[in-house]
Amino acid sequence: MSLVIVGSVAFDTVETSFGRREKIVGGSGTYCSLAASYFTRPKVVGVIGRDFPKKTLALLRSRRVDLLGLRIRPGKTFHWEGRYGEDPNVRTTVRTELNVFRDFRPEIPAAYAKADIVYLANIDPDVHGFILRQFGTPKAVAMDTIRYWIETKRDALVRELGRVDIFFANDEEARLLSGDSNLIAAGKTLLGFGPALVVLKKGEHGAIIFGREFIFGVLAHPHARVVDPTGAGDAFAGGFLGYLDKAGSFARREVRRAAVYGSVLASYAIEDFGIGRFLTLDRAAIECRFREFRKLVSF
Amino acid sequence: MSLVIVGSVAFDTVETSFGRREKIVGGSGTYCSLAASYFTRPKVVGVIGRDFPKKTLALLRSRRVDLLGLRIRPGKTFHWEGRYGEDPNVRTTVRTELNVFRDFRPEIPAAYAKADIVYLANIDPDVHGFILRQFGTPKAVAMDTIRYWIETKRDALVRELGRVDIFFANDEEARLLSGDSNLIAAGKTLLGFGPALVVLKKGEHGAIIFGREFIFGVLAHPHARVVDPTGAGDAFAGGFLGYLDKAGSFARREVRRAAVYGSVLASYAIEDFGIGRFLTLDRAAIECRFREFRKLVSF
Repeated sequence: MSLVIVGSVAFDTVETSFGRREKIVGGSGTYCSLAASYFTRPKVVGVIGRDFPKKTLALLRSRRVDLLGLRIRPGKTFHWEGRYGEDPNVRTTVRTELNVFRDFRPEIPAAYAKADIVYLANIDPDVHGFILRQFGTPKAVAMDTIRYWIETKRDALVRELGRVDIFFANDEEARLLSGDSNLIAAGKTLLGFGPALVVLKKGEHGAIIFGREFIFGVLAHPHARVVDPTGAGDAFAGGFLGYLDKAGSFARREVRRAAVYGSVLASYAIEDFGIGRFLTLDRAAIECRFREFRKLVSF
Repeated sequence: MSLVIVGSVAFDTVETSFGRREKIVGGSGTYCSLAASYFTRPKVVGVIGRDFPKKTLALLRSRRVDLLGLRIRPGKTFHWEGRYGEDPNVRTTVRTELNVFRDFRPEIPAAYAKADIVYLANIDPDVHGFILRQFGTPKAVAMDTIRYWIETKRDALVRELGRVDIFFANDEEARLLSGDSNLIAAGKTLLGFGPALVVLKKGEHGAIIFGREFIFGVLAHPHARVVDPTGAGDAFAGGFLGYLDKAGSFARREVRRAAVYGSVLASYAIEDFGIGRFLTLDRAAIECRFREFRKLVSF
């Protein structure tokens, strides 16, 4: 199958209890495609400025990420700055400079149009239609969102939920969008909005996958050190969708395994600042941790 | 084997998003012994006033809870009042009337002295020694605590951790006592204080069991309705210790299964106000949910 990821490729400035890093590479598209690259050959659609490091493009290419859909525009790359408290599940946005991302109307290369899985990572819900019209009939459309769209474009977001197959949300977003404080109730409410699968990401507490007739829980890897939580959710989506793309099936068994691979990729992403951990991560380490996840919950 | 539970048998007045109940039966000893009664014949040590309902004593007896250690004193039974917010993991104590519990110096019946497992539920750490001296050499001493003792008798509590085998704590208590905000780090720090097992209870997020050379995670049952979270932690301890008592072993495999049974009992406790759910709960329902827990995490 094939997976197209539409998202941000960006700079992040982050401050965690382990330190501060200025203008390191981040972005939902970057984390997601790196994570997916261990299973499939993801295609990325995004936009960067001329200031984006060639070295990172070379890294993405070396991981066999298809960059045909990544446009380089005059100007500066999207730059986000955030700070995490003692609790890495809580973060504060200090600054957002959209730069070349501001008027991003993603054009999908013709070669991507027959994608089997399309992932819309934190895209303005009013732009979804424009993007999806450029595709044939994907087997699955997946989307994530952020608090900002829930607060400013709730109706559009709910409308889009009616036509996607897989919806990723973290606990805060799920509560806000569903109006339910209980996370199980929230997941079920979101499922009622349309998607066949709701993936509720709970950071250090793992994730819950809600399907029409099943529910699956996966723990987070027991990390005593969370160096930088940025990108964990995107890495989860990348591992999840990358695995499904490789499996070529959305059967319940594959969805469960995909969720564990998602957790594995997220667990590696947070071990270093930015995309640092992906510089050395190999498939053997992923399989090793997959087995650890099984051991963690077996009885 | 045999299990002795030293704890409170009390009245609770609770307010949750599902309503308010005045002076219903509660208490750590009550919840814990009811939960344990599905696996073994627990012995309860506690004190009640003459106002405690005969009906509840009859219920405990019908569940084969040994009440020889439950003293009835002139005066009123311990009465706690609390309120839960939208998030059932957060509760506020409105009122605590210790009454006959105030000067409770638990006397252990001679018939209990050979207990294999002794559980000290939320007992003043300075009274632990007085209690434990009345026992022979239990195979395992387990304890729980509350925020109040961490804040007022930290040193005594840490000293007691040096001589117990199993320590139960919820996430707030674990963070407070260890000084670690990361829960995995907190669990490991608490293990360093002495116990062979630390059981970290995370409410809706399940529990993590830390051993010297293993870690095990169990999810909470996916409940969309948490009617009354009171006693969930005590029911967890009861299921956990009751199962271990029946198994007659502290082998890793049994500890894992015990943690799942703990989760099962906690998941039933919260389905009704107070001990209401235990009026109808039977062993078949427990086994059924045990199998659901396996299905929930299998991949």
